[in-house]
Order: sequence, then structure tokens, then C-alpha cells
Amino acid sequence: MITLYHCARARSFRPLWTLEELGLPYDLKMLPFPPRVHQKEYLAVNPLGTIPLLLDGDTRMTESAAIAQYLATRYGPTPLAVGVEEPAYGAFLNWLHFGEATLTFPQTLVLRYSRFEPEERRSAQVTEDYSKWFLARLRTIETMMASQDYVCADRFTAADISVGYALLLAERIGLALQIGPHAMAYWQRLQQRDGYKRAVDAENRAGDAAGLERRI
Amino acid sequence: MITLYHCARARSFRPLWTLEELGLPYDLKMLPFPPRVHQKEYLAVNPLGTIPLLLDGDTRMTESAAIAQYLATRYGPTPLAVGVEEPAYGAFLNWLHFGEATLTFPQTLVLRYSRFEPEERRSAQVTEDYSKWFLARLRTIETMMASQDYVCADRFTAADISVGYALLLAERIGLALQIGPHAMAYWQRLQQRDGYKRAVDAENRAGDAAGLERRI
Repeated sequence: MITLYHCARARSFRPLWTLEELGLPYDLKMLPFPPRVHQKEYLAVNPLGTIPLLLDGDTRMTESAAIAQYLATRYGPTPLAVGVEEPAYGAFLNWLHFGEATLTFPQTLVLRYSRFEPEERRSAQVTEDYSKWFLARLRTIETMMASQDYVCADRFTAADISVGYALLLAERIGLALQIGPHAMAYWQRLQQRDGYKRAVDAENRAGDAAGLERRI
Repeated sequence: MITLYHCARARSFRPLWTLEELGLPYDLKMLPFPPRVHQKEYLAVNPLGTIPLLLDGDTRMTESAAIAQYLATRYGPTPLAVGVEEPAYGAFLNWLHFGEATLTFPQTLVLRYSRFEPEERRSAQVTEDYSKWFLARLRTIETMMASQDYVCADRFTAADISVGYALLLAERIGLALQIGPHAMAYWQRLQQRDGYKRAVDAENRAGDAAGLERRI
């Protein structure tokens, strides 16, 4: 059985969404955010203190976009993975990484220095630097979505889960108005998917059961 | 023919190193750093202004760790890739991502706010926050290297190229003394590889030919 450690609306939503798209059985462990502060026992399970953590037999993973690729390729065949022989294979790998390293990391800086740090450690400069940084990189998606529906291969893939989560986060932290109409239409298209809706339901149900506040 | 746009010692060293490990022919285009300031024509080739850019027929990629995986899987079979049927497959994907999203991005903040920004925009706080952040995440590698030689699969793979570049960068920005003896021995082991040495030579030769300053 696959076990996923997850916090509401955090990066671990990528593996959750992938699990639901694939229809795989899994055990969802909900944690308060951030677990290293509010659930210190978690450090015994994952010394990094980060989420996600995915356990699947002897496999142990902590990188959300890598987990999306792992699930889609290990538990395929599924259209969610782009095969090495397909013309879009390079693009698939590229957008999987781009969604996290290029579109999500800068937003964590915005969150940290505008909200999570105590007042005296906040920084308007860093918040602005990385809001701009994110929006400049996002222009690639805006341009692309003027003429296509998904980031690669003319179909929904795990790479859309990686990029889609960055848009979810942008909405959460108040950057939504600056996203651009085509990227926003893309994000709305992703949210119409049954797999996305099932993932939101699963998160809310498990969070309610654990007595945690909903974050959507 | 594969074309790689590269700046000395930048993230694009990952694809360069992978190309040399695989012995593939390629055309190396050296740019001054950062290209969006010192070689504005590059924006016509890559509107993001970032490096690397890899072109391979219709394939176009900008994420360095994704390119390492692409080359190892598209141009295999090679021990540099871990196959989906191998027990270490999940770990392979995880460390590929971890090297960039978790170990390299925080260091770019240290560089930016301690060196690249003009004096009045530098931040000792952010520099310290992300030095600590990087070193905390790096502990995973230190622990692991006490009992193994490579991050996964008991052999050198593209995932070591991803993590190895983060150690190269740490050395460059002065975090080397804090790396820990096992992680440092690992990094020295990686530098003994012929593929690594050929990549350094290729970078220096192409940089000299382009009249660029050496950064190693």
C-alpha cells in the first residue's frame, strides 16, 4: 500500500492529485502545517521535516514533481506519462521540473517573507523580487496556453500536475490577478478534471477527520 | 546535432557533464553570465533568458536536471539512467529533483543577496536564512554518504550529476567548509571521473575561444 504524508494545499497535493488521476489505492496521512513545528513526531518518519513523503514498499520519496512522474511511470501504462519514444518526451521532463524548481520555489519566498516570518523578519523587497521572478517565468505558460490546452503532448499529463500546482499556489498567495488570461483558463480547465476534484475531496475528508482547518 | 547554451560553472554544467559522460557529440555555445545582461541577442533564442538551453531536433529544454535525465534515457541504454523496473527508480527520480529544487535554488538566493545585487539591495538575513536552509537539507547527503558511494542504485547515475552540481556551487560560494566530511568525499569522488574532467576541459576550451573569463 502506498502511504502519502500531506498537508492541505501544500506541494504534496501533486502526488495526491496523481494518485487520484490514476485511481490507485493509498493511505493519506494528514499533518498540520508546518509539521516540523506542529507535529514534531513526524521528524522521526522524515528527518527533513518536509512534505510530501511517499512510501511505497522500499521506495521513499520527498520531491513532489518526482513522485508525480514516479507514479505515472511505475503504475502505467497511462496517458499521464509521456514515453521516451514520444516526440514530447523532453518537454514532459522539462515541465515536470519547471513546475517545481522554476514556478513553485520563488513563491515559497513570497510566502515566507510576506506571511510566515515574524513581522520584524519580513521583507517587502524579497517579496517583490520573487513575485516578479515568478511572473516573468510564468509568461512562458501564458504564451503557450494561447495556442494549446496542455503543456505538452496534446494531452493532460503529470507535467500539468506539476505546473498546475504552481498556479494553485499563486491563487492562494494572491498573485492570481496577475496570472494572465490564457494561463488562468488553463488552470480552470485543470480544476474541472474529475481527478482534481477527487483529490480536493480526499484532502478535505481526511483533514476534517484529523480535526484540521480547511485551507481551500 | 545537440546544441547546448552554457555559462561557465552555471547549472548548464549538468547537461555538459552528462553529454561528456555519454560521449555524445554536441555543439557548445558559451555565453557571458548573466546572458540577459551581457548578451541580449540570447533573448531571441530563449526568451526566459536563463541557461541552460538544450536544442535537439524539435526538443527544447531549459531545466538542467531534466536535461540530464533526458539525455541518459533518450540516448541509452547507459548505467547513468535507472530503469523503471529497478528498485532504485523512485530514489533516482527523487535525487534528480532534490539536487536542483532543494539543494541549488536556496544557493541562488545566497549568491543573489550576498554578491549579485547592488550593495543597498543585499540582505545578510536572507543570505543566512538560505545558507542554513541549504545546509539543513544537505545533511541528508552527509548521512547517506557515510555508508554509500552514490545517491542511488549503487552506481554513478544522472542523479549524482544533479546533486554533484549543487556541491560544486556550494564550493564556489564559500559554503564548502560546512559541507561535512562524507558529502565532501563524495564530491571529490565525483570530480575524479573522466566525464567530469572532460566537461571542465570542454568548458575551459570553449570559454577561452569565446574570450570569456574562466570561473574555475
